[in-house]
Amino acid sequence: MIVLQFRNLPRDRCGVLTVEIEHVDVATLEKLEQQGVDCQPKASTIRIIQDKYLQKVHFSQHAIPLPDFMQIDDLESAKRAGNLFGYPLMIKSKRLAYDGRGNAVAQGEEELSSAVAALGGYGRGLYVEKWAPFVKELAVIVARGRDNSISCYPVVETIHRDNICHIVKAPADVPWKIRNLATEVAQEAVSSLEGAGVFAVELFLTSDSQILLNEVAPRPHNSGHHTIESCFTSQFEQHLRAVVGLPLGDPSMKMPAAIMYNLLGEEEGEQGFYLANQLIGRALSIPGATVHWYDKPEMRKQRKMGHITIVGPSLGMVEARLNSMLNQESLEAQTAGLASPRVGIIMGSDSDLPIMKDAARILSNFGVPHEVRIVSAHRTPEMMFSYAISARERGIQIIIAGAGGAAHLPGMVAALTPLPVIGVPVRASSLDGLDSLLSIVQMPRGVPVATVAINNATNAGLLAVRMLGVGDADLQARTLQYQQDTKDDVLTKAEKLGKDGWEAYLNR
Amino acid sequence: MIVLQFRNLPRDRCGVLTVEIEHVDVATLEKLEQQGVDCQPKASTIRIIQDKYLQKVHFSQHAIPLPDFMQIDDLESAKRAGNLFGYPLMIKSKRLAYDGRGNAVAQGEEELSSAVAALGGYGRGLYVEKWAPFVKELAVIVARGRDNSISCYPVVETIHRDNICHIVKAPADVPWKIRNLATEVAQEAVSSLEGAGVFAVELFLTSDSQILLNEVAPRPHNSGHHTIESCFTSQFEQHLRAVVGLPLGDPSMKMPAAIMYNLLGEEEGEQGFYLANQLIGRALSIPGATVHWYDKPEMRKQRKMGHITIVGPSLGMVEARLNSMLNQESLEAQTAGLASPRVGIIMGSDSDLPIMKDAARILSNFGVPHEVRIVSAHRTPEMMFSYAISARERGIQIIIAGAGGAAHLPGMVAALTPLPVIGVPVRASSLDGLDSLLSIVQMPRGVPVATVAINNATNAGLLAVRMLGVGDADLQARTLQYQQDTKDDVLTKAEKLGKDGWEAYLNR
Repeated sequence: MIVLQFRNLPRDRCGVLTVEIEHVDVATLEKLEQQGVDCQPKASTIRIIQDKYLQKVHFSQHAIPLPDFMQIDDLESAKRAGNLFGYPLMIKSKRLAYDGRGNAVAQGEEELSSAVAALGGYGRGLYVEKWAPFVKELAVIVARGRDNSISCYPVVETIHRDNICHIVKAPADVPWKIRNLATEVAQEAVSSLEGAGVFAVELFLTSDSQILLNEVAPRPHNSGHHTIESCFTSQFEQHLRAVVGLPLGDPSMKMPAAIMYNLLGEEEGEQGFYLANQLIGRALSIPGATVHWYDKPEMRKQRKMGHITIVGPSLGMVEARLNSMLNQESLEAQTAGLASPRVGIIMGSDSDLPIMKDAARILSNFGVPHEVRIVSAHRTPEMMFSYAISARERGIQIIIAGAGGAAHLPGMVAALTPLPVIGVPVRASSLDGLDSLLSIVQMPRGVPVATVAINNATNAGLLAVRMLGVGDADLQARTLQYQQDTKDDVLTKAEKLGKDGWEAYLNR
Repeated sequence: MIVLQFRNLPRDRCGVLTVEIEHVDVATLEKLEQQGVDCQPKASTIRIIQDKYLQKVHFSQHAIPLPDFMQIDDLESAKRAGNLFGYPLMIKSKRLAYDGRGNAVAQGEEELSSAVAALGGYGRGLYVEKWAPFVKELAVIVARGRDNSISCYPVVETIHRDNICHIVKAPADVPWKIRNLATEVAQEAVSSLEGAGVFAVELFLTSDSQILLNEVAPRPHNSGHHTIESCFTSQFEQHLRAVVGLPLGDPSMKMPAAIMYNLLGEEEGEQGFYLANQLIGRALSIPGATVHWYDKPEMRKQRKMGHITIVGPSLGMVEARLNSMLNQESLEAQTAGLASPRVGIIMGSDSDLPIMKDAARILSNFGVPHEVRIVSAHRTPEMMFSYAISARERGIQIIIAGAGGAAHLPGMVAALTPLPVIGVPVRASSLDGLDSLLSIVQMPRGVPVATVAINNATNAGLLAVRMLGVGDADLQARTLQYQQDTKDDVLTKAEKLGKDGWEAYLNR
């Protein structure tokens, strides 16, 4: 338990009492509450959460969607549950269960007895859950203030290894509507509990796009560790703000994406430390990576020894960095990965290259990593499709597409990606490029292409730099400098014309 | 001093010895070094830095640009210095000077004696500096690893109150070339010193765009406190990485802008605590603000009691938030400030509004704060000029400009701002809008306008959302959802046509 003292209270008085783990003596907590100690969240909440069966009963009474469940007291009732819910059947201890401890799976009726025995027998207090055929596990950290104000962190995806949280992706790569639904369920679940603090709501996303509640933890949680680096207010600060009655902080993300990797013990003892150190050594060279080592005295298999959070401009990018860390790639390969392209320059034909090279040149001048590819809408439609679909996941942030004549490439790519697409009309054999311009700019409502002047790939590059400059003060300063430099160029010419007169100027 | 111990060393052995303040007993440090203790940075560096006069001599020997200076030993030499450098004249103690202590200004020869007396007399060890007519004070945190690798944090502007650092703006709002020059000078200064660690280099920017070195601190520094929230690696972690020989972390900013405000004691005692608490209370409701309270037992006037860092999408935005915190605006006004517009929608005439409203509608649907204004290039050129110039500072990130006929507004605005400008050609009385389209899209090299289809302000709104989505995972997810929804709309129609046949479909 954590006791918070305040400046205006005598040393022996407690300001607020909160918990960092729900497995505390709740009877004592209730007694303290009766004596006037301010517990946040309330002892009633801890009592409900401690007992997973009670938790399920509570949430089902509050109409929160969750997998079917029932208590089992003996083999008879276990078999009944098996008949009702089918197999595999998840058997759980009601109490003192976390990180997969207290869970056992029976694949069929014949495994019921051994699964129950593994959990310590019926006397331990058991219940079963209908197997939730989830496609992803999601989690939402919900903060509630003493004034009942509610604030939700972005929905994350949690990936477990042997029932232990291993990787957290923030935000979860699920449709917007699913994010909203998950947030709504999490918020309703927390609203049904009493007291202030941070609550972690673990959820299942099923194949038919349903959100089911798995369980709630009444405290900061592993699924929120990424918030230390990625959010304006970390879950830990938020918990303190909530329980002492300060206004809740902004839970939104500073960065577009974060990934958290738990350092789970791989081996007992020294070998385990050695392996963890190897990984940490590589993490130190990954940009955006922060290492947290808990300095636990003993290394045990599957024990949470620390975690590493990587933040970056997109989920694709932070996943690539995590993989390069885990796959023991050389430092050189990692460094190469850093310069992974932010802008993709594509064109329908190599005959567009003499024009399109100007965009690449600008991006090089501004130090923006980019790639240049030939992708034809009409001659390689499959490649165009796969390029457009995968660009975002590969970390591409803007696409510049050039084409001439019946110039479909920019518009088709824009229809397949949520990224901004800049279109460069390339002058083809007829109509002086007006055909290309109108093919690119006259897009239907719903699918925008940012069109620049005919053959003006320079401006496409500059526009990409301006777009990236929205979130990159460095690039914005360089754009200002570019504007100053071009102004100075013109002023120099103006001065020369003024001094020499127009005849000398033309005859130079 | 900080002693770092490592797991593989006996408890009584020191791994690395580093300093958190340069005012230590350097003779002892040198003795320890001789006994084999690993000091980072080296004692030689601390010796140079401790004595500000020695520091100036050292840097001038290494050709680092700095204000003229000379030692003074008596009134005679002080007068000579006054004659040479002119007045006002800055007189400084060589040692134990920080936060403005040990500095005195003589406005004329008659003030020399009193200024020297205020510093404790010539016996204290004094020197004078030629008054540096700076326009801004800048600072660069430079990290050097044990392998001599160098890594520089973004240049910041420091604003002092009574010689004490009060506000730090990151990055400094100075031209790109000045940033490069400042970084170069800082890097050269640190390269001339021995040992690993983080160094803070304080600089003057003069009115003729020169960078002069002020002084160097061989440790994490007040000008780098913002890095805790705003950079991938904080200066404190960077210092530890440097001195123990780990690879240096990424010093770049996570967020486009940060502002750090020192909580300096306003009054002695309880009243001082009360005032600080008032300010902290307001800071807790400012998004992106983090409060650091050092919990010093005693409140003294001008004492650094803590600091507040505000991070956000632009310097203009974080400055506005700082001001709303300092000016004691009501919470409502602050909250209104939060929704300060990210996109500016402007048009040449109210006759464009029936078209341009579609952009506003899209932005409302996506929850993007925006403003709608009439700004005519031809009829209100001054307003157009001031709108374009001030947009960035006001926190506007993208401008959508609509105009018809000889449609100059988008291009003129693009010439005046580094922000991305989206142009909407509005169909005027003749040529079916082709005049507007060509006036907007056919910009000269150097000034891009992202042009959308004639009258298609919907696409302008969607393009702005895609641009903001580059740095905002939430908006990108919403764009994907929008694409899915429009696809579903079409599929529903396709199904109906398939089921009903074309005749019934047309006759419905």
